Amino acid sequence: MQLQNNLQTKTGWEIIETTFNADQLSTTGSNFMIGNGYLGYRGTPAEWTAEQFVACIVSDTYDAAVDGWRELCNAPNGLFTALSINGESLSLFAGQTHAYQRTLDMQHGLYQRTQKWESPSGKQIEVEVEKFASLDNVHLLVMRYAFRPVRAARVELITGIDGKVWELNGQHFKSYQCFVQDELIGVETITREQNIQLDVVEGLEIAGATPRTTERVQSSDRSMRQMVFDLEAGQQVALQKVVAVYTSNDGPTPRKRAEADVQNALKAGHALLKEVHQKCWANIWQTTDVKIAGHLEDQTITRFNLYQNLIATPRHAELPIGARGLSCQVYQGAAFWDQELFNLPVFLYTDPHIARSILKYRYNTLDGARKKAQRLGYYGAFYAWTSGKTGEELFPDHFFTDVLSGRKVRNHFNDWQIHISPDIVYAVWQYYNATGDWDFVTDYGAEILFEVAQFLVSHVYFKKDRGRFEFIRLLGPDEYHENVDNNAFTNYMAQFALEKALVVEARMQRDAPEKREALLARLGLDATDIQNWQEAADLIYLPQPDSRTRLLEQFDGYFNLEDATPEDLRQRLVHPDEYWGWPNGVAVETQVLKQADVLQLFAVLDNFPADVMRANFDYYEPRTEHGSSLSPSVHSQIASRIGYSKMAYAYFKQGATIDLYNASKKVNSGGSFLGGIHTAACGGTWLMLVQGFAGFSLGEGGVINFSPALPENWDGLAFRLSVRGNGLAVNLTRENLILKAEESNATPLTIKAHGQTVSLEPGETQILPQAA
Amino acid sequence: MQLQNNLQTKTGWEIIETTFNADQLSTTGSNFMIGNGYLGYRGTPAEWTAEQFVACIVSDTYDAAVDGWRELCNAPNGLFTALSINGESLSLFAGQTHAYQRTLDMQHGLYQRTQKWESPSGKQIEVEVEKFASLDNVHLLVMRYAFRPVRAARVELITGIDGKVWELNGQHFKSYQCFVQDELIGVETITREQNIQLDVVEGLEIAGATPRTTERVQSSDRSMRQMVFDLEAGQQVALQKVVAVYTSNDGPTPRKRAEADVQNALKAGHALLKEVHQKCWANIWQTTDVKIAGHLEDQTITRFNLYQNLIATPRHAELPIGARGLSCQVYQGAAFWDQELFNLPVFLYTDPHIARSILKYRYNTLDGARKKAQRLGYYGAFYAWTSGKTGEELFPDHFFTDVLSGRKVRNHFNDWQIHISPDIVYAVWQYYNATGDWDFVTDYGAEILFEVAQFLVSHVYFKKDRGRFEFIRLLGPDEYHENVDNNAFTNYMAQFALEKALVVEARMQRDAPEKREALLARLGLDATDIQNWQEAADLIYLPQPDSRTRLLEQFDGYFNLEDATPEDLRQRLVHPDEYWGWPNGVAVETQVLKQADVLQLFAVLDNFPADVMRANFDYYEPRTEHGSSLSPSVHSQIASRIGYSKMAYAYFKQGATIDLYNASKKVNSGGSFLGGIHTAACGGTWLMLVQGFAGFSLGEGGVINFSPALPENWDGLAFRLSVRGNGLAVNLTRENLILKAEESNATPLTIKAHGQTVSLEPGETQILPQAA
Repeated sequence: MQLQNNLQTKTGWEIIETTFNADQLSTTGSNFMIGNGYLGYRGTPAEWTAEQFVACIVSDTYDAAVDGWRELCNAPNGLFTALSINGESLSLFAGQTHAYQRTLDMQHGLYQRTQKWESPSGKQIEVEVEKFASLDNVHLLVMRYAFRPVRAARVELITGIDGKVWELNGQHFKSYQCFVQDELIGVETITREQNIQLDVVEGLEIAGATPRTTERVQSSDRSMRQMVFDLEAGQQVALQKVVAVYTSNDGPTPRKRAEADVQNALKAGHALLKEVHQKCWANIWQTTDVKIAGHLEDQTITRFNLYQNLIATPRHAELPIGARGLSCQVYQGAAFWDQELFNLPVFLYTDPHIARSILKYRYNTLDGARKKAQRLGYYGAFYAWTSGKTGEELFPDHFFTDVLSGRKVRNHFNDWQIHISPDIVYAVWQYYNATGDWDFVTDYGAEILFEVAQFLVSHVYFKKDRGRFEFIRLLGPDEYHENVDNNAFTNYMAQFALEKALVVEARMQRDAPEKREALLARLGLDATDIQNWQEAADLIYLPQPDSRTRLLEQFDGYFNLEDATPEDLRQRLVHPDEYWGWPNGVAVETQVLKQADVLQLFAVLDNFPADVMRANFDYYEPRTEHGSSLSPSVHSQIASRIGYSKMAYAYFKQGATIDLYNASKKVNSGGSFLGGIHTAACGGTWLMLVQGFAGFSLGEGGVINFSPALPENWDGLAFRLSVRGNGLAVNLTRENLILKAEESNATPLTIKAHGQTVSLEPGETQILPQAA
Repeated sequence: MQLQNNLQTKTGWEIIETTFNADQLSTTGSNFMIGNGYLGYRGTPAEWTAEQFVACIVSDTYDAAVDGWRELCNAPNGLFTALSINGESLSLFAGQTHAYQRTLDMQHGLYQRTQKWESPSGKQIEVEVEKFASLDNVHLLVMRYAFRPVRAARVELITGIDGKVWELNGQHFKSYQCFVQDELIGVETITREQNIQLDVVEGLEIAGATPRTTERVQSSDRSMRQMVFDLEAGQQVALQKVVAVYTSNDGPTPRKRAEADVQNALKAGHALLKEVHQKCWANIWQTTDVKIAGHLEDQTITRFNLYQNLIATPRHAELPIGARGLSCQVYQGAAFWDQELFNLPVFLYTDPHIARSILKYRYNTLDGARKKAQRLGYYGAFYAWTSGKTGEELFPDHFFTDVLSGRKVRNHFNDWQIHISPDIVYAVWQYYNATGDWDFVTDYGAEILFEVAQFLVSHVYFKKDRGRFEFIRLLGPDEYHENVDNNAFTNYMAQFALEKALVVEARMQRDAPEKREALLARLGLDATDIQNWQEAADLIYLPQPDSRTRLLEQFDGYFNLEDATPEDLRQRLVHPDEYWGWPNGVAVETQVLKQADVLQLFAVLDNFPADVMRANFDYYEPRTEHGSSLSPSVHSQIASRIGYSKMAYAYFKQGATIDLYNASKKVNSGGSFLGGIHTAACGGTWLMLVQGFAGFSLGEGGVINFSPALPENWDGLAFRLSVRGNGLAVNLTRENLILKAEESNATPLTIKAHGQTVSLEPGETQILPQAA
């Protein structure tokens, strides 16, 4: 079926492009990408180079090409392959292309392209490409590149490793060395700042013809094989390329390991590599797929987001999920709070060991958070707004550029947006609740919780005359309003974090006294500190819904700001690229929001009554500009909860198509490129489906709640959840909620839905009719 | 002698302009002005109108011509007089002017002008004008306007009341009614917002000739008499004009009172009016003059500043001193902290009842300060940054305009610059110490102190982990750095204010228990409140000088800002009129200051050791841009104290010539007119002389200290001080400090100077040789 933005699908498992659109190079390069959490390879044709945004982003390679800006590196492109027929180079930008098709097969993690090209002088050649980033061995990129001239022709082929890749902020490699090992070619690079060694090794097999000539061509940043074929009409040549990428972060002798992997892969052969890869994908989809019945477009959109969230997430090591995944260098390949609140939930309930790995990453980076706290005059752990390998703050003091003065603006994302720390505590607690993994808490989580509690106590002020603690000078998720006090989202989350630190401390006193003792000693904490947490937890100011209007004020004085709509503000812009927020943007003195903090609060702490949620949704929603890709999914979830079904669906469509339908802003204020995959929106799609439409939540005691609100135009919604080691298949139809506990479950599941509480024995299925 | 800026002096008592400079209309109009604290009449020729910045600013007439901007009104110009000879209008802008002289006689409070004018067609006429704003009856303006044609001529004269006066921000009068009463003419106006009735009545006498014809000419905003004289060669006609200005704020029937005053004044005649007026001036100068021996220019400069401070200051009622006095409508004719810290000290030690009146004004406006506190979520008294009649905040939320976007900027002068409240407490305490007027304290001062203490307690935050109170989100005197914490000046002043509230409360408990009881009851205060003051006073964070560098940090984190000089920043401007401060000006992220808070702190709380003062002067001075007219006098005072004699003198010259030598910025960022007399710099001149060069200070017990540092090129400095009802003549020469107690003193004076302590009996003179 036809989708929007020049896309089609057949089964809901793939997106297909049949017309090439040169205006969307950066978008389609992201959308058609392949990856495996170790590397992301953009969905660009093999003939392309830096100008067309070719990139192979490698996780864990944080390095500064320019001082003060550390980001992931782009590996030299081992899949580069170009050909020319009778001297004319195959291109999507010249000649004529027939039978063009670019496909992302999400079920199998495959990129495919077919094209019949007619050169300017009328020569015709057919090309068929398939590639994947192996899920079995995450260092491997595998490509089959086949071509066939329609009439007899001389075809020149160049293939190898191209160092000319897309660099957003300068060249990371200070050295670039080409080497040849047996039949393999390779390049070894060293990064400028961190001296990371990165090796790319390529192996090649050719079937269907023998080249007339073969040469090796090397330049400072290219290592190529150049071949000439004299081919009959219809004679197909198929290249089998295998590329391995290793860095010194992966262990010693990366070059040797890359060589060995390529040799082994060539031995195994394309068919086997692909089979194993597909098996891995099949396993993932078994736990992760969300099926939508009766709406193929939404099914496709859903899988696109699940797929992108999956390939953005490192499975091989305890590393962060980038705000743009591994789709490009935007946002430095680093984690934000998005990771815990948007990317993590899907793993929490489908593949909890990945959630654990993400949180373990936060544990590993505690020292970075401690350094940041100390540098800013606090103690404990103030997590980085933008967190790379070490957890030290990667976000620059000056991010946006004032387009009117050309001057960099001092934004305060990195020092005022403190909710990141309690957000991580929240995720730790969610993990504990979803898995019951108390060992993780005592071994790692507790240290995070205690250090965040310390940070919060070092940040908070006591207002003696009001008898309460207040958080001053904040930036909440709504980034248009900096320098605010008692941001509701921040205060509630801080209170949550302090409470959980106290709970864990108390439980450890009972269950793990030695670990507790040792931890407190190591952190230098004593009874006074714990008393401070308690006092703060008890007396933090938590803005309450107004008794009459039921409104919760986003921060002190918000309701006194000018009441305006996003449309009003658009009229006030003197330059289309102005930043709307701090310090002097059009939204600052108005009630217009980038995203709604209060709704975000409802989304995470779901103990607010429905009338409060409804009143606040009604108030904040028309004032929200959705300048963040995180905003629609929150709106959709809350809309589902309060019975705003049409709105819930509209926001689902908006949030889930940001990338697929190319609806996102591509540059920020000041002109920096901001494209790439919005991984938080991908994670948010799962939230809208499972927490929104199915109304899933997990109570503190492990009770599973559903409160379904299926969109009108769907016939059903089905997914699998994993809760405390037990599997549950959920199938929501228009008539019923069908729940099936997996055979292998260890314990019965307690489920509340439609006002009933049911207990589901292992293997048992129950059908709960929808409420009238 | 010749001064700078096209000025001369003869005796040091006058400034004389002998060449007319059309480029300096606004400056000379201010510099040559006359006034008496009730009204200020700009030093503009009688023939001029609005285009030449004619204004007669009347105190106490705060009114909004445009919504949200309340300022003093400009009365219709009762002195307007123009003439033409044989049809050609006398003008400074046409024909030729010979023997031009404009004089401000500061000794006698007189404006004089002589001019021999040759018309374009060669007609010649001599004009001699003298006018004054009576100090005896502050409602009266008196002018003698004499003219004499060189050859026989027909001279047409028009004189009366001209409503076309300079309005900075729109027309204040919604009605304008001309009337005639006997021989008098008048206009009665009603202001737009406050419905203030303002009456201007004019009386005229003519000597030397009888007009051939006389007509009355009235238009909507002009009431004129038009006369034609046929004059012989050399025949002089002298007009005697008397104008009275009354408003409904002065009492009932302002029109009747104005008519009566004019009638009486005409009866008394010019000579007598002038004699009484001059006697008043003589009395003032007797207590206020500061004599400089050996430097006529500095003598003149000094008197100019004393004069302007005197005429800016209301003596007739408890009203504020405007930041531009009564010289124009800039800064709304309202008081800032300048009043207490720059204008008030001269009165404190020369004419304490005026100091009392100023402080009584602050008492009268406590309700405005209470309202402001409440509106911003505090309690107690948060004094207005810009204070008019009621003490409600007159400063707009948006003052500057971002010249690049054309958008108004939200400045935080009105809500973050809290030091205004403790500054007023400081002045109350200074008044009490200088006068011993305990009744004022118990009747009025205590209420100010207690309410400010309440405000401070409602503003301050307790930082539990540091065990101290902190002030958060401040704007100090250095207005380039908004949103700072623990601004040293603010914190110290707040601590001072709290301490004095406690001292007064304790003394009242002993000396005035009933008044105390009644006051506390009225304010709703109890022991808990007083305990809160004590706790805050004890635990307010007071930044201390670094043990090694001796530097005191202006606010938290200041030393981490980029180190730059004002010159560096000038290079970074993308538009010459950019505001340097909040939110995104060039100074914000640097150490460049508008004025130095730490030096300002030393200037008021003089208990910092000399090495600390020196280290901080050395550090802050090169980083200070002196964007405020308050800055040079502070620098001069501290330079005097630490032995930086040359710098002290250079800053004296800079601070004392801001207006006279036309060195001030005339427009702000966004283009609003900012000219007029900088009254704080006028008051600051006295501070530089008496507290700086003579090193005068008054110890808490009433001990008078001198620590002289006479500028190298002066022979002497002499002035009179009044301390607790006793007079002291101080004469500082190169060799000696000569001190003479007045005969009428009630008690001996204790004086410390040059390491000696002397006691001076009434009438006694002592000569203390200068230290070697």
